[in-house]
Amino acid sequence: MISAARTHPAAARSCVFEVFARRLPDGRRYGVVGGTGRLLDALADFRFGDGELAAVSGFLDDETLAWLADYRFTGDIDGYREGELYFPGSPVLTVRAPFADAVVLETLILSILNHDSAIASAAARMVSAAGSRPIIEMGSRRTHERAAVACARAAYLAGVTATSNLEAARSYGVPSAGTAAHAFTLLFTDSNGPDELAAFRAQVERLGTGTTLLVDTYDITRGVAHAIEAAGPELGAVRIDSGDLGILARQVREQLDALGARTTKIVVSGDLDEYAIASLRAEPVDLYGVGTTLVTGSGAPTAGMVYKLVEIDGIPVAKRSSHKESHGGAKAAARIARPTGTVTEEVLYPAGSGGPVTADGHSATLLQTPLVRGGEVVAGLGSLHDARDHLRRALVTLPWEGLGLSHGEPAIPTRYAF
Amino acid sequence: MISAARTHPAAARSCVFEVFARRLPDGRRYGVVGGTGRLLDALADFRFGDGELAAVSGFLDDETLAWLADYRFTGDIDGYREGELYFPGSPVLTVRAPFADAVVLETLILSILNHDSAIASAAARMVSAAGSRPIIEMGSRRTHERAAVACARAAYLAGVTATSNLEAARSYGVPSAGTAAHAFTLLFTDSNGPDELAAFRAQVERLGTGTTLLVDTYDITRGVAHAIEAAGPELGAVRIDSGDLGILARQVREQLDALGARTTKIVVSGDLDEYAIASLRAEPVDLYGVGTTLVTGSGAPTAGMVYKLVEIDGIPVAKRSSHKESHGGAKAAARIARPTGTVTEEVLYPAGSGGPVTADGHSATLLQTPLVRGGEVVAGLGSLHDARDHLRRALVTLPWEGLGLSHGEPAIPTRYAF
Repeated sequence: MISAARTHPAAARSCVFEVFARRLPDGRRYGVVGGTGRLLDALADFRFGDGELAAVSGFLDDETLAWLADYRFTGDIDGYREGELYFPGSPVLTVRAPFADAVVLETLILSILNHDSAIASAAARMVSAAGSRPIIEMGSRRTHERAAVACARAAYLAGVTATSNLEAARSYGVPSAGTAAHAFTLLFTDSNGPDELAAFRAQVERLGTGTTLLVDTYDITRGVAHAIEAAGPELGAVRIDSGDLGILARQVREQLDALGARTTKIVVSGDLDEYAIASLRAEPVDLYGVGTTLVTGSGAPTAGMVYKLVEIDGIPVAKRSSHKESHGGAKAAARIARPTGTVTEEVLYPAGSGGPVTADGHSATLLQTPLVRGGEVVAGLGSLHDARDHLRRALVTLPWEGLGLSHGEPAIPTRYAF
Repeated sequence: MISAARTHPAAARSCVFEVFARRLPDGRRYGVVGGTGRLLDALADFRFGDGELAAVSGFLDDETLAWLADYRFTGDIDGYREGELYFPGSPVLTVRAPFADAVVLETLILSILNHDSAIASAAARMVSAAGSRPIIEMGSRRTHERAAVACARAAYLAGVTATSNLEAARSYGVPSAGTAAHAFTLLFTDSNGPDELAAFRAQVERLGTGTTLLVDTYDITRGVAHAIEAAGPELGAVRIDSGDLGILARQVREQLDALGARTTKIVVSGDLDEYAIASLRAEPVDLYGVGTTLVTGSGAPTAGMVYKLVEIDGIPVAKRSSHKESHGGAKAAARIARPTGTVTEEVLYPAGSGGPVTADGHSATLLQTPLVRGGEVVAGLGSLHDARDHLRRALVTLPWEGLGLSHGEPAIPTRYAF
């Protein structure tokens, strides 16, 4: 595409590409923009080295190879800030550059936004379901080894408290946390059989009484007894990783209280998703460990965002074939809110036009911010922590049904003011 | 865990960890082991550098930090070869090493095997559904940017013909292929409106008549006419990316034939999964482009494999709590086949015992091969291409119902001969 386009005068024309999702995953009420920060980092490093150029030299002409060798993005990018909500059609990213300069970024942009937004969107529902209780992300082992790091970052953005992925702690400052595995307890087995108490004692000896002991390797009631025997009633927490977590949490709470361990917390894990988390609301659970469903987007592992050419030299363009209608022309976006702060709709209107007119005390918040100018990342865009705070505030603006876990319509409609 | 275990005499004991999946994804008949080659590459590079050590120095003791700084794996690994079929309980990887040496690899091993096996398992069903027609993997933009490269590799392993991911071509020698996007056609729009013919002419000029022209940006019938006008009846292929692909393929075939373009192929893409591919069997489709469903494992984005301690100094160990029964003890595995070559069951038996006894001319093939000895990857393990060939041969051994796309039981039972 790049080679063919660049031989033609059209190559020099100014293009606008937009990233948007045609729809939310089945029944979801909102999406969360994730990955913007990672994308801007990756953009700065996006070059073609000798190895890459050699790999494509078999089918690319010399002129295109020379163009790739010199490539660095010099255009402009606007977008929704990381941690912003999005809805069907929301122009979450807008790239302005000549055709080839913009097309060459398509896979990078979509891969990062589709992955991280899918994870952040699923994680936000889990955080919502957990209410004020913290969640630890512990799903690294169930997804690609590098995707796992991005998952931990996206989960933190969405309000998850900590991750077991230490590389995410190192790279992105995500708080880290972890507990022991069954293998640790099993290790303390000899010809006389298993010795759970010895395992717990070894863990407490090294990590102190504030540690979390995994009590379900053998019999849970005996496990709890061993845990308190090893650590005393000051034990930080016990973890339950199997069985009916609600029933077990109640039994374990009673047992802990009876043993005087009234401050010992209960951590539950094991195939938790947002629905299972919500079902445990009334149970004495203090912390959730979530793995597989979080890193796989709880049934929606990709956000399904697309990267579409919408404008060339000011002329709107759009694909016209069936079932994939697109709205041509660069779009701006505003979210309309009642005086109470509750949002009522998202309005998309032609970029550069006056923007939406509001009445009855409604306000309009513009959603796009400059991210890149002349190839340089705009200064002061805010940290991952800022994005996390932004999402927390944004979720409060949704109408109450917008936070529902059940299948439903998007929390607010998208209106095209064209 | 490592810190606590290493203070204890148990740390020196010889451990066996096994990787297995408790079950296949809902309704699947078989799984495909993917990622073994990537894992062995990653194992050779698995070290803790200054940056990693600094990141964990806040909570780890000096002795454990020193151990991590010197860490390299020196144990043994056996496993199913890449491209082998697996079933519930199959011990696809067996790690023999002291506790800490093996535990520190858990996330690396599971991440790679869970991801790549999920993709390979889904892709194999698509290849099966496509029969002799080739598939191009083009889903990079719908998954994490590094996972995308691994997806292309796993898809090729599973029999997919080529990938649009050029990094996978560079890193792993996967054949690459691609077609133009709608944006390319849209680029040729000016104040007089769109000019599809100019777009096709530009592409043919650069890439020759053997190229694939995307004909559904505007009206498909006109698109096909423009395609042949630009390239002549020698045009390589047209691609249809939307609409009812079966009906459109028939119409386009008739139109191409009427235009004398009898050798021009038809490529279809757009939300294809294994079921959609199968439903197009009777239609004049020459090649499938598959994206989202392939890189997300077609509903099963992780293989759900676990890494369990099964034996310590020759003593079998197993977690005993509810719903997660495990079989303790290191296991060997053999697949039993009739004289015709059709497999009948997978037998797991204690490693080091005599192995299964067969009768009636049945044969037993041992499934585990040495992968690592004393930390060094065993020589001559075979390439990605060999793994691809192996899978093709292995699928032929399944009973015919084992290749069914519909939900069902595993193609063969797993029997524990303990």
